[in-house]
Amino acid sequence: MHNIALIGAGRIGRIHAANVAAHPGLALSHVVDPVADNAEAVSRDLGGRIADLDTVLGDPSVDGVIIASSTDTHLDYCLRAHAEGKAVFCEKPIDMDLARARAAAASLRGARLFLGFNRRFDPSFRALKASLDAGTVGGLESVQITSNDPGPPPISYVKVSGGLFKDMAIHDFDMARWLLGEEPTEVFAWGSCLVDPAIGQAGDVDTARTLLKTASGKLCVIANSRRSGFGYDQRIEAYGEGGLIRADNVTESTVQVWTEAGARADRFQNFFLDRYAAAYRAEMAHFADILDGAAQPEITYADGLAALALAEAAAESMKTGRPVRP
Amino acid sequence: MHNIALIGAGRIGRIHAANVAAHPGLALSHVVDPVADNAEAVSRDLGGRIADLDTVLGDPSVDGVIIASSTDTHLDYCLRAHAEGKAVFCEKPIDMDLARARAAAASLRGARLFLGFNRRFDPSFRALKASLDAGTVGGLESVQITSNDPGPPPISYVKVSGGLFKDMAIHDFDMARWLLGEEPTEVFAWGSCLVDPAIGQAGDVDTARTLLKTASGKLCVIANSRRSGFGYDQRIEAYGEGGLIRADNVTESTVQVWTEAGARADRFQNFFLDRYAAAYRAEMAHFADILDGAAQPEITYADGLAALALAEAAAESMKTGRPVRP
Amino acid sequence: MHNIALIGAGRIGRIHAANVAAHPGLALSHVVDPVADNAEAVSRDLGGRIADLDTVLGDPSVDGVIIASSTDTHLDYCLRAHAEGKAVFCEKPIDMDLARARAAAASLRGARLFLGFNRRFDPSFRALKASLDAGTVGGLESVQITSNDPGPPPISYVKVSGGLFKDMAIHDFDMARWLLGEEPTEVFAWGSCLVDPAIGQAGDVDTARTLLKTASGKLCVIANSRRSGFGYDQRIEAYGEGGLIRADNVTESTVQVWTEAGARADRFQNFFLDRYAAAYRAEMAHFADILDGAAQPEITYADGLAALALAEAAAESMKTGRPVRP
Amino acid sequence: MHNIALIGAGRIGRIHAANVAAHPGLALSHVVDPVADNAEAVSRDLGGRIADLDTVLGDPSVDGVIIASSTDTHLDYCLRAHAEGKAVFCEKPIDMDLARARAAAASLRGARLFLGFNRRFDPSFRALKASLDAGTVGGLESVQITSNDPGPPPISYVKVSGGLFKDMAIHDFDMARWLLGEEPTEVFAWGSCLVDPAIGQAGDVDTARTLLKTASGKLCVIANSRRSGFGYDQRIEAYGEGGLIRADNVTESTVQVWTEAGARADRFQNFFLDRYAAAYRAEMAHFADILDGAAQPEITYADGLAALALAEAAAESMKTGRPVRP
Repeated sequence: MHNIALIGAGRIGRIHAANVAAHPGLALSHVVDPVADNAEAVSRDLGGRIADLDTVLGDPSVDGVIIASSTDTHLDYCLRAHAEGKAVFCEKPIDMDLARARAAAASLRGARLFLGFNRRFDPSFRALKASLDAGTVGGLESVQITSNDPGPPPISYVKVSGGLFKDMAIHDFDMARWLLGEEPTEVFAWGSCLVDPAIGQAGDVDTARTLLKTASGKLCVIANSRRSGFGYDQRIEAYGEGGLIRADNVTESTVQVWTEAGARADRFQNFFLDRYAAAYRAEMAHFADILDGAAQPEITYADGLAALALAEAAAESMKTGRPVRP
Repeated sequence: MHNIALIGAGRIGRIHAANVAAHPGLALSHVVDPVADNAEAVSRDLGGRIADLDTVLGDPSVDGVIIASSTDTHLDYCLRAHAEGKAVFCEKPIDMDLARARAAAASLRGARLFLGFNRRFDPSFRALKASLDAGTVGGLESVQITSNDPGPPPISYVKVSGGLFKDMAIHDFDMARWLLGEEPTEVFAWGSCLVDPAIGQAGDVDTARTLLKTASGKLCVIANSRRSGFGYDQRIEAYGEGGLIRADNVTESTVQVWTEAGARADRFQNFFLDRYAAAYRAEMAHFADILDGAAQPEITYADGLAALALAEAAAESMKTGRPVRP
Repeated sequence: MHNIALIGAGRIGRIHAANVAAHPGLALSHVVDPVADNAEAVSRDLGGRIADLDTVLGDPSVDGVIIASSTDTHLDYCLRAHAEGKAVFCEKPIDMDLARARAAAASLRGARLFLGFNRRFDPSFRALKASLDAGTVGGLESVQITSNDPGPPPISYVKVSGGLFKDMAIHDFDMARWLLGEEPTEVFAWGSCLVDPAIGQAGDVDTARTLLKTASGKLCVIANSRRSGFGYDQRIEAYGEGGLIRADNVTESTVQVWTEAGARADRFQNFFLDRYAAAYRAEMAHFADILDGAAQPEITYADGLAALALAEAAAESMKTGRPVRP
Repeated sequence: MHNIALIGAGRIGRIHAANVAAHPGLALSHVVDPVADNAEAVSRDLGGRIADLDTVLGDPSVDGVIIASSTDTHLDYCLRAHAEGKAVFCEKPIDMDLARARAAAASLRGARLFLGFNRRFDPSFRALKASLDAGTVGGLESVQITSNDPGPPPISYVKVSGGLFKDMAIHDFDMARWLLGEEPTEVFAWGSCLVDPAIGQAGDVDTARTLLKTASGKLCVIANSRRSGFGYDQRIEAYGEGGLIRADNVTESTVQVWTEAGARADRFQNFFLDRYAAAYRAEMAHFADILDGAAQPEITYADGLAALALAEAAAESMKTGRPVRP
């Protein structure tokens, strides 16, 4: 049984805490959050003593920490937790600043650090990857990633989000790297403000198309919008020599209604905590395996750096109108 | 090039006439219909001289006749056309009266008579049958036939239709025999009047469930309703030892609309002339092959008798509340 | 927090125990099973003291019991637990013997007894029922229930199962009653042995088709087989005046592979504990609501009697070849 | 009845000839082809006198001409036929050379010239456009066009094709313009040779991704490959404010096979003459309407110029690595 401390007890932290509590090999020992209400709510409902960060990092009974605090703290907490010998499960992104993140890489060499790009643990995306690796359609040639949110976040969030590429497309850059099996060597991006003019006034775009190319000529398209109009829209198509493997959106049930208007399926799942519930559980199982020494982190700090580099390259390409090498 | 005479230039006759005209090996030579307007319309649009039945049957240049006149004339015209050496393409059913139809069987022995159970020529049902015969799911165990009309016919039609089993389910009895590969030895049927009380007042039912069983224990369900509420609803499921083969309804296009209400497919085809357009063309190609001597009729008078016997057995079962041997 | 005792720590009991442990309002206080290994495994993994039945029923701290022991004990344990004032969550069926079960009904009047027909809690079937009740397709006319197991159980199980109708179709009789909103007044059933001759030698059938009719003429077909060939095959179609509502099978992921052979979806779920995991969780949430006084049992002893009566009627119909009134 | 002359009796010409023959308002009067076998085959099977071009253009009984000859003759024949007062149905593209085509525009002003971008007449793409225009998902924001051939053409064809953008993507540029409802003002394209190295040696690419942007910021992605691995892969997704409208690939039948491997649908249509049979028929009906004076050409010479300009811009972008204004 490994003791786990949760650092950051907000929405996503609470999900992780529940998965710790439900995992037979993990125990939620501490909850850290400067917002007392958050910490108390998680502690009350799911267990774990309320504590401050220093206490937690200094407590030798704590085997692992989950860093689900605000993005600007991720890198610092990773470094500190690693220095204390803890295994770390850190939410994405590692940092907003690529140069700073790169500078920290040496200090994190050898860390048991698992970066939470949750989509790699989604059962459908994972089945797609497994089918691709099994050669079901032969060698991969191109990838289409569709990744649209149900609706835009509040403008207050947009302003501090780091922009669409670092905040939203970062997941897709990680998926692209994971599926392409080869590093993108060029990035080209266009963005528009079509959903909400306030997003444009905040200096961001809400709609983007990004092209990635690898050294061997594989091509990847990433399509992003802050609003789908119909729920969570996260689909992947991977073309190989012998065909296509695709993962589709998820509906709330298998129910269909057939009327004069045609067959209507049930609604698409609309909330990321529903859409990725299984992925979050699988992430925690993987973290338990890391703590057991049964697995190496599937997603590392280097993966976080690479995704961040692609996000910066996309933003620069959009600004300059030119392809950019990440 | 074979000369073909059309006998009966109503709705279905016109379809056949157009398919004759479009077939490179067939020519529409004559059109017969006591309703002058019908005959003139077909003759004007698709060719063929207007003629009376005696003339047509006595004309040695006529190689084949299509009998698309009213049901009560089918048997008589088949006998006369066969006696004159014509190949015959007769619309279903062969007759309303099983005893009379059985009595005529001897006279039709050896006839080049093709009975138009069009559904056997539908591309999807045909692909299902081919997959079944190819052993895709091993030996057949059971069949589910769903066969609902978009909406009920006029009461005037219901009154002379011969009843749901002879008028509508007759197609399904033929499909069942075709797919089961074995004769049903028992029939059980229940019917209700749920769609329109006037149908009940006319002595008929509008909703029915019929069970068929073969000597080896294979089971078949036929589900019928005069109204689906969403268009033509004709689906088949065939279970074998290793799985299921199914043919689904047909939509008007591949378009889907995804909104907050869910994904909505385009409407289902609603009109039998659309739904079975390809089947009617394939029937005519088969008739041309029969005239060329390149094929024997796939559906014979004996098939017509067997389907009619099942329809009578179903009607009797519904009346007596007992299983009936056809 | 309500203390719950588990009686019967086998496969399904273990599922319920895990759902008790994960529910914030319930605690697993005791585990009862004559097979020591079963009790110990559940107690070790999920908590709860190992105890005997008398101790549990006599302990006033126990608020509710889950009866997941062998079928022949269900009725007796229900009666005893109710007599001690416990709320009861009893697995289906209530008993194998309709007469005996009817005789016990008076003693259970007023019991807080929730009978676990889990399919009513499946998200898709529940969404279908909600859509039907909301009038999406108008008044209900007919129901088609397809309910095939992935593969047959061991012959040793078949011999003590009570037969296909009481063991397997009992779920479908409950679904039929729930959806029809009206009691079936007649039952007709045919069965065959097509999957495994040993099942026939054991006096049972492995394939059946059952028709139900209500007083107002609504029709229901139940299709059962002990083997689908492709996983759990549990689908429902409900026809109303204005169309059809259907719930389909569940796939393991949304992945499709498109090749020259066509588009292939991922496999259908094959194991009932996967297929109904969400239903079992929802059942436990309902039991917690009953204990809280926030809900009356959605499925009662009377529902158990009615389903059992339909199962006996189906078996008798199959034997006599006649429709039977339940 | 309008007399129609076919110029070019190859594969696509033959399709048009058959549709002329089957159309009640059109008659195939002449067939022109320098390859005598082609002309004879069409004339024999579908009618029409074999003639040379001068005869046809000089014959006042000819109302319309179909130009289905080699691409390098399209523009010249359009000019000559128009000069003789004929209505013209010209296969795409209008020419390989944008400058030359632009120079001819003045001479074709007022021509009854219908350019055969057949996909606009495909029932599914047409239904998508109609739904978009009806406001089903509100204002359009972005378009995804997937357009992959089943397999690559012979290298001999690739060498004279004008390159992937003019030969294959030209259809997609037309679709993009049609759907966006606004002219693309910038084009960015990347191409790779992933399917067959011989295509690269011939100076072409076999895989490409093209981005289009309009003045208002609408974004369009065109994905092309010379090989899908599973048949004709031509799909469209159009995102609006309120959701998505999509048109999917077409299967050969509605049959599915459900086994332990999952549900497999029938194969996708593989041959463009099957995939677009309905579109070619609808094109001919439109040409008949133009001849009747009942319609103006839906696709004009100006549309041909605009699509060609986008193809040239894409090719230039691929060469320079920069966005290009068409």
